[in-house]
Amino acid sequence: MILITGGVKSGKSTFALLMALRYKKRAFLATGVPFDDEMMERIRKHKEERKNLFDTYEEPVDIATILQKIDRHYDVIVLECLTTYLGNLLHYNEDVESRFNILVDVVKTMVSQLIIVTNEVGWGIIPENNLARRYVEILGRWNNELAKIAQEVYLVISGIGVRIK
Amino acid sequence: MILITGGVKSGKSTFALLMALRYKKRAFLATGVPFDDEMMERIRKHKEERKNLFDTYEEPVDIATILQKIDRHYDVIVLECLTTYLGNLLHYNEDVESRFNILVDVVKTMVSQLIIVTNEVGWGIIPENNLARRYVEILGRWNNELAKIAQEVYLVISGIGVRIK
Amino acid sequence: MILITGGVKSGKSTFALLMALRYKKRAFLATGVPFDDEMMERIRKHKEERKNLFDTYEEPVDIATILQKIDRHYDVIVLECLTTYLGNLLHYNEDVESRFNILVDVVKTMVSQLIIVTNEVGWGIIPENNLARRYVEILGRWNNELAKIAQEVYLVISGIGVRIK
Repeated sequence: MILITGGVKSGKSTFALLMALRYKKRAFLATGVPFDDEMMERIRKHKEERKNLFDTYEEPVDIATILQKIDRHYDVIVLECLTTYLGNLLHYNEDVESRFNILVDVVKTMVSQLIIVTNEVGWGIIPENNLARRYVEILGRWNNELAKIAQEVYLVISGIGVRIK
Repeated sequence: MILITGGVKSGKSTFALLMALRYKKRAFLATGVPFDDEMMERIRKHKEERKNLFDTYEEPVDIATILQKIDRHYDVIVLECLTTYLGNLLHYNEDVESRFNILVDVVKTMVSQLIIVTNEVGWGIIPENNLARRYVEILGRWNNELAKIAQEVYLVISGIGVRIK
Repeated sequence: MILITGGVKSGKSTFALLMALRYKKRAFLATGVPFDDEMMERIRKHKEERKNLFDTYEEPVDIATILQKIDRHYDVIVLECLTTYLGNLLHYNEDVESRFNILVDVVKTMVSQLIIVTNEVGWGIIPENNLARRYVEILGRWNNELAKIAQEVYLVISGIGVRIK
């Protein structure tokens, strides 16, 4: 598994897509479900960027099952992104920990190359908002766990992917 | 062109100035116009740091024209900083995209070494404030575009410049 | 002295503890004093992580004196963390600058290996809150100063320590 992290608009998605283009059969698992117009527009743009180069799957919550189902059918699967996924779990009042543990178990056994896109969100002043704080804590922990089992980790800054593992 | 990025108070300005000191004839293009006392004080401090080592130009909006005018007259020109520049454009309701495109065109043809200082602003929780969000998106895109045409890119952390391109 | 920096939940504390385990006699100087239940819980968890591997000292304000007192008695002293320390000084209306200058003087003369854990807090939108802004500015300056006198500086991302000096 390859983990790609970076700030908002750091170019990490484009970096992930370019990396995936080196593989032949490509899938894209989008966790984003549009909550508002801004998000709808953002998703539309992302889709445009991928064109017909990827088979697209969309799932906001049960991504572990999808990954298991499409594993071995593709050379590479891009999971975009962990940040939205955590937002979805909190939004739907899902059991965040057990969902993540199941995901990690699936990731460990996958045969297709998996590229996970995540976010750096803890490099600012700790937000006063309780939910935001919880979000930063959980995503930070997730990133740590996934970086441990990743073969490669990249930090993307201004579109430049710096390999840190 | 050399792009220097980093967080607030990361030491990126000092790093840029030190880098510029290796050149003989030096100009400094400041985009900051004081909106309040805090900014006035900040600008005063920055000026003090530069002393008489640089010819200083100040322009909040039409920096492309200034760059074109002073190009070839200096060995190095430090443009400080893109963050404030974007803030100015939004403040004056300028056409952000066309201003940026003109800037990029000028940058591509310049003969003097240009050092652009920018900021990392998307490594925290996405701000609820709409303008702040737009700001993060635009600056992120700009940084990506400029990093592509830069010969060198540095990320400054605690005063330490890490070359990432 | 070794400086370890990174975002919230970046794994920098664990990285610092693992680094310290290479030394024989180990002390841990905690600057955190619990202001609320969340912090109390966080401190409890950190203590658990350290188990009996470290002698623990706790001091919210006068850490310079403690460092001077326990220097030479340990092979390594972990100071965790500068961020909380600055928060304490502001909370108790202490003279931030003189406290920091005294700390730097002590750090320069220490014989025990000192590992200082700090935070990256300026990689987001500049907070509107005045105190938060002041906090970002001061901590940024501190990190710059300490990085200058550090033998090694590490940036921790998703649990991965990247040596930048």
